[in-house]
Amino acid sequence: MFTDLSEEDLSSYRSRQTLPDDFAEFWDRTLADSRSHGSSVEVTPIDAGLSTIDVYDVTFSGYGGDPIRGWLRVPAGASGPLPTIVQYVGYGGGRGRPWAELFWASAGFAHFQMDTRGQGGNWSVGDTADASGSAGPQFAGVMTRGILDRETYYYRRLITDAVLAVEAVAGMPLVDASRIAVRGNSQGGALAMAASALSSRVRASASVVPFLSDFPRATVITDALPFREIGEFLKIHRDKAARVHETLRYFDTVNFARLSTVPTYFAAALMDAVTPPSTVFAAFHEHRGPKEMTVWPYNGHEAGDVDELPRMLEFFRRELDL
Amino acid sequence: MFTDLSEEDLSSYRSRQTLPDDFAEFWDRTLADSRSHGSSVEVTPIDAGLSTIDVYDVTFSGYGGDPIRGWLRVPAGASGPLPTIVQYVGYGGGRGRPWAELFWASAGFAHFQMDTRGQGGNWSVGDTADASGSAGPQFAGVMTRGILDRETYYYRRLITDAVLAVEAVAGMPLVDASRIAVRGNSQGGALAMAASALSSRVRASASVVPFLSDFPRATVITDALPFREIGEFLKIHRDKAARVHETLRYFDTVNFARLSTVPTYFAAALMDAVTPPSTVFAAFHEHRGPKEMTVWPYNGHEAGDVDELPRMLEFFRRELDL
Amino acid sequence: MFTDLSEEDLSSYRSRQTLPDDFAEFWDRTLADSRSHGSSVEVTPIDAGLSTIDVYDVTFSGYGGDPIRGWLRVPAGASGPLPTIVQYVGYGGGRGRPWAELFWASAGFAHFQMDTRGQGGNWSVGDTADASGSAGPQFAGVMTRGILDRETYYYRRLITDAVLAVEAVAGMPLVDASRIAVRGNSQGGALAMAASALSSRVRASASVVPFLSDFPRATVITDALPFREIGEFLKIHRDKAARVHETLRYFDTVNFARLSTVPTYFAAALMDAVTPPSTVFAAFHEHRGPKEMTVWPYNGHEAGDVDELPRMLEFFRRELDL
Amino acid sequence: MFTDLSEEDLSSYRSRQTLPDDFAEFWDRTLADSRSHGSSVEVTPIDAGLSTIDVYDVTFSGYGGDPIRGWLRVPAGASGPLPTIVQYVGYGGGRGRPWAELFWASAGFAHFQMDTRGQGGNWSVGDTADASGSAGPQFAGVMTRGILDRETYYYRRLITDAVLAVEAVAGMPLVDASRIAVRGNSQGGALAMAASALSSRVRASASVVPFLSDFPRATVITDALPFREIGEFLKIHRDKAARVHETLRYFDTVNFARLSTVPTYFAAALMDAVTPPSTVFAAFHEHRGPKEMTVWPYNGHEAGDVDELPRMLEFFRRELDL
Amino acid sequence: MFTDLSEEDLSSYRSRQTLPDDFAEFWDRTLADSRSHGSSVEVTPIDAGLSTIDVYDVTFSGYGGDPIRGWLRVPAGASGPLPTIVQYVGYGGGRGRPWAELFWASAGFAHFQMDTRGQGGNWSVGDTADASGSAGPQFAGVMTRGILDRETYYYRRLITDAVLAVEAVAGMPLVDASRIAVRGNSQGGALAMAASALSSRVRASASVVPFLSDFPRATVITDALPFREIGEFLKIHRDKAARVHETLRYFDTVNFARLSTVPTYFAAALMDAVTPPSTVFAAFHEHRGPKEMTVWPYNGHEAGDVDELPRMLEFFRRELDL
Amino acid sequence: MFTDLSEEDLSSYRSRQTLPDDFAEFWDRTLADSRSHGSSVEVTPIDAGLSTIDVYDVTFSGYGGDPIRGWLRVPAGASGPLPTIVQYVGYGGGRGRPWAELFWASAGFAHFQMDTRGQGGNWSVGDTADASGSAGPQFAGVMTRGILDRETYYYRRLITDAVLAVEAVAGMPLVDASRIAVRGNSQGGALAMAASALSSRVRASASVVPFLSDFPRATVITDALPFREIGEFLKIHRDKAARVHETLRYFDTVNFARLSTVPTYFAAALMDAVTPPSTVFAAFHEHRGPKEMTVWPYNGHEAGDVDELPRMLEFFRRELDL
Repeated sequence: MFTDLSEEDLSSYRSRQTLPDDFAEFWDRTLADSRSHGSSVEVTPIDAGLSTIDVYDVTFSGYGGDPIRGWLRVPAGASGPLPTIVQYVGYGGGRGRPWAELFWASAGFAHFQMDTRGQGGNWSVGDTADASGSAGPQFAGVMTRGILDRETYYYRRLITDAVLAVEAVAGMPLVDASRIAVRGNSQGGALAMAASALSSRVRASASVVPFLSDFPRATVITDALPFREIGEFLKIHRDKAARVHETLRYFDTVNFARLSTVPTYFAAALMDAVTPPSTVFAAFHEHRGPKEMTVWPYNGHEAGDVDELPRMLEFFRRELDL
Repeated sequence: MFTDLSEEDLSSYRSRQTLPDDFAEFWDRTLADSRSHGSSVEVTPIDAGLSTIDVYDVTFSGYGGDPIRGWLRVPAGASGPLPTIVQYVGYGGGRGRPWAELFWASAGFAHFQMDTRGQGGNWSVGDTADASGSAGPQFAGVMTRGILDRETYYYRRLITDAVLAVEAVAGMPLVDASRIAVRGNSQGGALAMAASALSSRVRASASVVPFLSDFPRATVITDALPFREIGEFLKIHRDKAARVHETLRYFDTVNFARLSTVPTYFAAALMDAVTPPSTVFAAFHEHRGPKEMTVWPYNGHEAGDVDELPRMLEFFRRELDL
Repeated sequence: MFTDLSEEDLSSYRSRQTLPDDFAEFWDRTLADSRSHGSSVEVTPIDAGLSTIDVYDVTFSGYGGDPIRGWLRVPAGASGPLPTIVQYVGYGGGRGRPWAELFWASAGFAHFQMDTRGQGGNWSVGDTADASGSAGPQFAGVMTRGILDRETYYYRRLITDAVLAVEAVAGMPLVDASRIAVRGNSQGGALAMAASALSSRVRASASVVPFLSDFPRATVITDALPFREIGEFLKIHRDKAARVHETLRYFDTVNFARLSTVPTYFAAALMDAVTPPSTVFAAFHEHRGPKEMTVWPYNGHEAGDVDELPRMLEFFRRELDL
Repeated sequence: MFTDLSEEDLSSYRSRQTLPDDFAEFWDRTLADSRSHGSSVEVTPIDAGLSTIDVYDVTFSGYGGDPIRGWLRVPAGASGPLPTIVQYVGYGGGRGRPWAELFWASAGFAHFQMDTRGQGGNWSVGDTADASGSAGPQFAGVMTRGILDRETYYYRRLITDAVLAVEAVAGMPLVDASRIAVRGNSQGGALAMAASALSSRVRASASVVPFLSDFPRATVITDALPFREIGEFLKIHRDKAARVHETLRYFDTVNFARLSTVPTYFAAALMDAVTPPSTVFAAFHEHRGPKEMTVWPYNGHEAGDVDELPRMLEFFRRELDL
Repeated sequence: MFTDLSEEDLSSYRSRQTLPDDFAEFWDRTLADSRSHGSSVEVTPIDAGLSTIDVYDVTFSGYGGDPIRGWLRVPAGASGPLPTIVQYVGYGGGRGRPWAELFWASAGFAHFQMDTRGQGGNWSVGDTADASGSAGPQFAGVMTRGILDRETYYYRRLITDAVLAVEAVAGMPLVDASRIAVRGNSQGGALAMAASALSSRVRASASVVPFLSDFPRATVITDALPFREIGEFLKIHRDKAARVHETLRYFDTVNFARLSTVPTYFAAALMDAVTPPSTVFAAFHEHRGPKEMTVWPYNGHEAGDVDELPRMLEFFRRELDL
Repeated sequence: MFTDLSEEDLSSYRSRQTLPDDFAEFWDRTLADSRSHGSSVEVTPIDAGLSTIDVYDVTFSGYGGDPIRGWLRVPAGASGPLPTIVQYVGYGGGRGRPWAELFWASAGFAHFQMDTRGQGGNWSVGDTADASGSAGPQFAGVMTRGILDRETYYYRRLITDAVLAVEAVAGMPLVDASRIAVRGNSQGGALAMAASALSSRVRASASVVPFLSDFPRATVITDALPFREIGEFLKIHRDKAARVHETLRYFDTVNFARLSTVPTYFAAALMDAVTPPSTVFAAFHEHRGPKEMTVWPYNGHEAGDVDELPRMLEFFRRELDL
C-alpha cells in the first residue's frame, strides 16, 4: 500500500528543513582538513575469475587520511581513459565481492564501487574501518554515532570519503577525469547527491530513493530502520532532540540538493517505508540542476531495481557522451 | 515455552568452548597496559532531588585511560566506609538517571553503577564514549565491533573498564575496600564474572542470566539479539567464522568462570531466548568457587527481576557481612 | 512514527464524548453506597530489607466494603504528618513488591501505592480480589467485565477504590491530610483524574498518558490493547455497541476532566498507540483547573518514564509545599 | 510443521501428572453442594427463522445454583424422546446464535449447546454470567481466575455446569435420558471428558483436541494461548508455581480420563500448538473405557473440523443406537 | 481500528474506475461463446447423513463448457418448485462438504452452492478444475492468472460460471425459476454482483463486502491479500501496470454495479483491510437498483458473519415472496 | 539458529522416501511424448545495452511442445563452441531481464537461463505460460497444481522443460554439446538434479539447497513456503494425503539423486528453513556419482550466494575443461 502522500501531494510537498548559513563553510573546512592529510591511491589488479572484465583493488585516502577501499572494474583489456561511474553502497553494506555488480563495466564504463567505512557487516561485505571515529552513546547502527555534534557525526566522515573518492578516481589513467558520474541507491543516493554538491568533478548523478533526506519529517513518519535508529535514540535521550536535529541539518540530502546543479536522475517508490517518497520529493524539489524523476507506484525500497538500470544507462550515456 | 534443554539435561550439559593457553596472559597484559595510563577518579556530589540518598557523579580511568562515568549512591549522610556493590548494565544501556535504581543504597550499601562505553543509546541513557575504539566492518550494535582481532574487540575495552571500576571504587573514602561485590544481569552478569576472575578486590558476585557465554553454542541455538549480531555478521563474512570464534574464546563467560573462585550467585530462566539457559549453566558448571543457582521456570530474560533482589540482598549481606 | 494527529491538530481537537446529565449523581450515589459499608484501615509495618525507607502493608475498605491492599512507604523513622502521593497502577498490574518504586519516599513523601482489584497478574503482582464483581460474557481482561450496565461495570468498582484510597490515607497519622496528591500513568492516570474529580481531598494530580479517555474515538483509531478489548467484544456482540458506549460515558476520563478543578500535570506521547495522544489531549482540553502538558515527540506509551519523575517532583513540591 | 513429538513417541508418551487421593471426593462434594441449590430448568421455544429445526432457549441451574443458558435444537415437529448430544464450547466462546450449528439436529439428534459462564465475548456470543465467581489477581482470560485455590478456581464452576447440564437435559421430554452423549472441541473436549467421568448419565463422549490436559507439560511446551495465560501469571507470581500446579491437578483432563469408562472418540492434530498432541495423547492413554483416536497430521487446532463430523456422526449413531 | 475513510467520507466517495464502452459487448460475446458449448446439468442425490435436508451433487456446464460442480440442498422431501438462493464462495475456497452450510435449506430455500474453478485448496475444499485455463507468468493465487489480456483472465471464466450457474439452476424441477436470488461474501459478493448484472434470471442479490471492486484504489490502499497479489505482480512486471489495469476494468465490481438494477443487500465493515470499505461503497454508490447497506463498525472482513444471516433472510423472504 | 539436525546427525540421516518401481519408465514415457511434438529452437540476438556480452532471446519446445523461453549469454563476439551452463531459476521467478546475471558469461561460458513456465510473477519476471496445464483445486502457487495425479502434476511439465532445455542448447552452434553442465539454487537445484538424472547430455551439476527433496520429512518439519503449500492443501483435503504423497514420489529430488551419476556440487545451509538441511543431505546421500558438499553454518536459504560463485566456477572449470 502507499506509505506516504498521494502523487498530487508529493508534487507540491516542500520540506521544512532549513539550510544552515555556514553549511558550505562547514563542508569546505571539512574537506580541506582531510585533503591536508595528503592523498595516496593504490590500484592493484586482482584475479576475479572473469574473462571479459578486469578488476582492481583500490585504496585511497578518505576522511582524516583514513585508507578507504574500493573495486574498480573495466572492460577486459581497456587502457582508458573511460567514462566512469562512481557508485556508493546502501546502508549496512560494503563494496562486496569483486566478481559481483558487473553491469556497468559490461556496458563499457569504468566502474568504481566505494567501500563504506565501518559498515559492510550486513548484506554485502566491506573491508574498511571507521578508523578515526570516536563514538559517544549510540543506538545500534551508525545513524547516531557521534550525532551530538556535527564534528563527530559519522556521516561527516562518510560524505568526505565520497567526495574524495571522486578525486581519487579522477587521477587514474583508466579514467577520463572529464567524464565522471556518481550514483547510488538509498544511502548511496544520499552520498551521490552530496558528492554532486561538493565536488566540481561530478558531471551527472543518479540518486535513487536517496536516504538521509528531510530528517524532520522522516524521523516521525516511518517506523522502518534505519531512520528509526534516530527515533530510538531520542526515545531515551529525550533532552537531546533539538541538538540532534541541529547536527542533522548539515547532513540532510535536502540541503545538498540545494547546492547541486548537476544533471540528476531521481527515483521514488510509492510503497517505500524506508525512504518514504515525500522525503525523496523533498530533495527533488530543492535540487537546482536539470533533473528527471521516475516514480514506481507498486514498489517499496527496491524501487526500479533491475529495471532502473536501462533508464540510468541511457541517462549516463547521454550525460557522459558514451 | 522452554527455549532450551530440560532441567536434567542442563545439569549435565558442558560447553565445548576451550580455554586459550594464553588467556590469563592476554588479560594481564591488557590490564597492565591500561593501568599504565594512570588512574584518576573524580567524585562530584549532585542533586538528584532525593532526601534519603546521596548521589555522586563519578569519572574514572578505564581502558586506555579513557574517562568512564558512573553513579555512586549511598544512604544520605553516610561517610563510609560502606560495603559496596559495583553494578554493570545490560546490553544497549548506560548508567541511566541518578534518581533511578535506588534499591541497593536504600538497603544500606554504597552502590556504584558503571556506565557502558559507546552504549547507552537504548533503554537507558549513557554518557561515556568508546573513545579508543576503532572499528572494521561490523553489524549494527557492538557485538562485532573489532571482532576480527582480540586486540581490537569491543569487549576487550569494556571488560577492562569493569575491572578498573572495582579498583577505582576501592580507593574511595565512602567505600570499604575489603567489602566489594559485583553484580549484573545479562551483559552486566558477564562483566561481573569477568571482574570476579580478573580482580582480586572482588569478594562476591551475582551473575544473573550472564551474556557472552558459550559462544559456540549460543550463536547457533537462538535467533534473539544480541547473540544474533554475530550470526548476521558471519552470514555475510562467511570466510571469517573461525577467526571470529578464535577472538571470542578470550571473552567467553565460560572461560572467565574457569578462572573465578569468588562466591557467586547465578540465575537462569528456562524460557529465556536471549541467553538460553544452557549457556548460563555452561558458565555455572565451570565456575570454581562457591556457587548457587536460581532457576526461574516460567521466565524469559527478565529472570527473577524484582524477585531476584531479596535473594541477592541476602547473599550480599552474608558475603559482605552487612 | 506518529500514531495520531499532528501537534497542531492535537491542540485544536475536541472529543465528541458527551457528559451524562446524571453523571455526578451516579458517582455520588456509588460512593455513598460504598461508604455505607463502613471504613476500616489496617496499617502493618513489614520488613522490606531497606534501611532508608519504612514500608507498611495497608488494607482499606473499597467499593462495597471490599478489602483493598496497598503499600505505604515513608522515609525511615518518619512519624509524619508528611505530604503524600497516592499512586495508581497501570493496566494489568498490581501494587508490586514492597521493595520496588522507591523514588517518592526517597524524595521525602509518604507514598501510597494502591493495589488494583482483580488485576495484578501481569507485569507486577497484586494481592486484591475483585470480590464483589459479577461478570456477564466478556472478552479477556477487565475492559468488558460487566460492561453492559454502568452498575456492574468493572471500573465502577475500581474508581470507587481510588477515591476511597484517598480518604483512607487521609486518616493515617503519617499523612498530612491537607497535602495529598494523586498520580498515575495510563490506567493509573485515569484513576488519578477520577479521584481528582470525585474527592475534595485531592490537592494536585499527575495524569500521564491517561487511559479510558475519549472512548468513541479511542475504540476505532488503535488496534493496541487494552482499548482493543472493547472492539473485540463488539466485533461479536454486534448488537450491543450503543449499550456499551452508553455505559462508557460514565467512565470516560474526558468526563472526569470536565469535573476536575485540581492543578494537574498531563503528559502525552506522539508515538503512543496505547493511549493515542488525541485521547490524552481530549481530556486535557476539557480539564477545568490549572494544567500543564508535556509532549514527548519520540516516545510511545512509556512517555517520559524516568525523565518524567523530576518534572513531577517539581510539580508536587510546589503544589504540596515540600 | 509438527509442534510436538513424533507419532511413535506420542504412542509411548505418558503424563507425569498425578491423581490426588481426594480427587473424587472433591468433585462429589462440589457437585453435591451445587445440587443442594435445587434444580430448575426453563425451556422456551424461539423463532430462529428456520423451517426444518425447532430451537428452544434453555436456562438451567449450574454451579451454586447460577442460571446457565443454552440452546436446544431438534428436528422440526419432533416430540421426543430423542437421542441427545450435549455440546460444550471452546475457549472464549459462548452458545452463539440459535440459527447456527445446525448439523446435529439436522442429523436427527436433540442437540443441546451449553453456554460458557463469563466467556462468550470472543468469536461466539454468550449470555451467561460467572455470577458466583470471585477473583483474586489474574492474568487476562479465565485460566488464572481464582487459581490459587481449588475451591475458587474458575473451572470448578464451569465443570460443575457441564455435569449439571447433562442432568438438566435428562429431565426434558424431548430427550431420551438413556441416550445422552457429550462432545466438544478443545475446552469443550475437556468438559466432555469431565462430564463423562463425573456423570453416570453420559453414554458416549467425543473429546476432540481436549484442552486443560497435562498441565505440567502443556504449560512449558507451547507459547500459544490459552495455556500461556498460566505461564504469564507465573512469570510474575514466581513464588506461586507449586500452589498453582496443586490446584490444577483437580482440573486436569488427564485425571478425568483416569476416572472415565465411557466409550470415547478422541482426535489430535500433529501441527497443533494450542493443545499440543502429546497433551491429548496423555489423556487418551489414561482413559479407562473403549476409545478410538483420529490423528490429523497436517492440521493445527482446527483438527478435523468439518471432516470430523461424519466420523463423530457414525460414532454417536452407533453408541446411541440412532 | 478503522482501515479506511470515515463514515462521512465513505458516503461521498466515488470511484475513479471507468466503464469501457464495449463492456456489455465483451460479456455478451463471452457468455454466448460459452453457451454455444451446450448446457448439460447432472443432479445426483447423495447421502450427507442428514434427516432434515436432502443434498444433491450437481455438475453443470460453465465457461467453455467446462464441468462445474455444486451442492444443491433442499428441505427433506421437498419436491419444489422452491425459492432459490445461488451462493458463491470466497477467495481460495470451494463448495466445501455437503453436510456444511445448512442455514438456507433449513430456512426453506433451495440452496445451490457453486464450486470455484481451480480454487478450493484453501479453507474449504473444491472439486472443480480450471480446465480451460492457460496461464502466463503469475503471482501465487488466481488474481494474476492470465491478467495481461481480458480474454485470458481467470475471472472471465469464473464470472461466466457464476452466470451459467443461475441458468442451470433455473432449469431444475426443484427450483422456481421466477424466484432465484444470488448471494456471496467477498469474492462471492463480486460474483453475485456480476450475475445480477449479466443474468435476467436474478431477482435479488446480497453482496457482502464484495471483492474485485475499485481496483485503481484497492490495489494501493491495502497490503492484505488477495488484492495484494496484483501489487506483487506489478512490483516485478513494472512495465505492465497500464495493461493490467486495462484488463481489470472488465472485471471491476464497480462496473457490474453500473449495469445492475436488481434489489441488492450490501454490507461493509469499517475495520476491513481485505476489501476496504471505500471499495464496497464504490460499488454501492454506482449500483442502479433498489439497495440497502449494513455498516459494521467494529468488524473486519468477517463483517456481519452469523449476524448477517437474519438480515439477509428477511431481505430474501421479502424479495422472493417466501 | 539451526533449523534442523546437528551436523553429525545430518551426516547419518537417510530419507524414508521410496523409489517407485516404474519411476524411470514414467519419465522415459513422459520425455518421449514431449519429444514427439518435434523440437524447434529459435535464437534471436537482442540489444541488452552491453558491450562485453552478447545476449540472445531463445524459444525452444518444452513439455507437450509448449514454447519455453530463455536467455543465452556469451562473451561478446564469441562464435563457439563454448563450454555451457544451463541455469534453472528458483521458485516464483522467471528468466528475469537480459542484462542481469552476467557472471557466467563474463567468466567465459555460454550461459543459458531457462524461463519457468507459469511462474515469473514474483521476484524476477518470466515470459512463459504453463500452456498445457490444467488444474484441479489447488492452494496458491504451483506446488499443488494438478497434484492429485502424477500425469497432471505441474512439475511433470517443468522437469520435462528442464531436460529438453539441455537438448535444445546442445544443438546450438555457440554451444559445445560435449561440455554442458546444469546448475540452480532451490527449485533450480531440483531441476538440475532431475536433468542430470534424465539427460545423458549433462556432464556436471551444481545443486545448491535443492528444493522438492524428501517430501515425507520436508512437509512436516518446516512452516516455510513453498513446502508449506502442500501442507496447506492437505490441511483441507484431509482425505488426500496418501494420494498426494504417491504423486510426489515421482518428483522427489531424492529419487532423481538415486538415478544420477553426474559429478555434482551440493550446498546446504544450517539455518535454512525453506529447504531444511536434512532434506538436502537426503539427496546428497543418495546421489550415486562423484560429489562434494559445502555446508554454510550461519546461512539461511541464501546459502553461499555470491560466495558460492567462485566455488562453482572452480568446479565447472574442472569438470568442463575450461
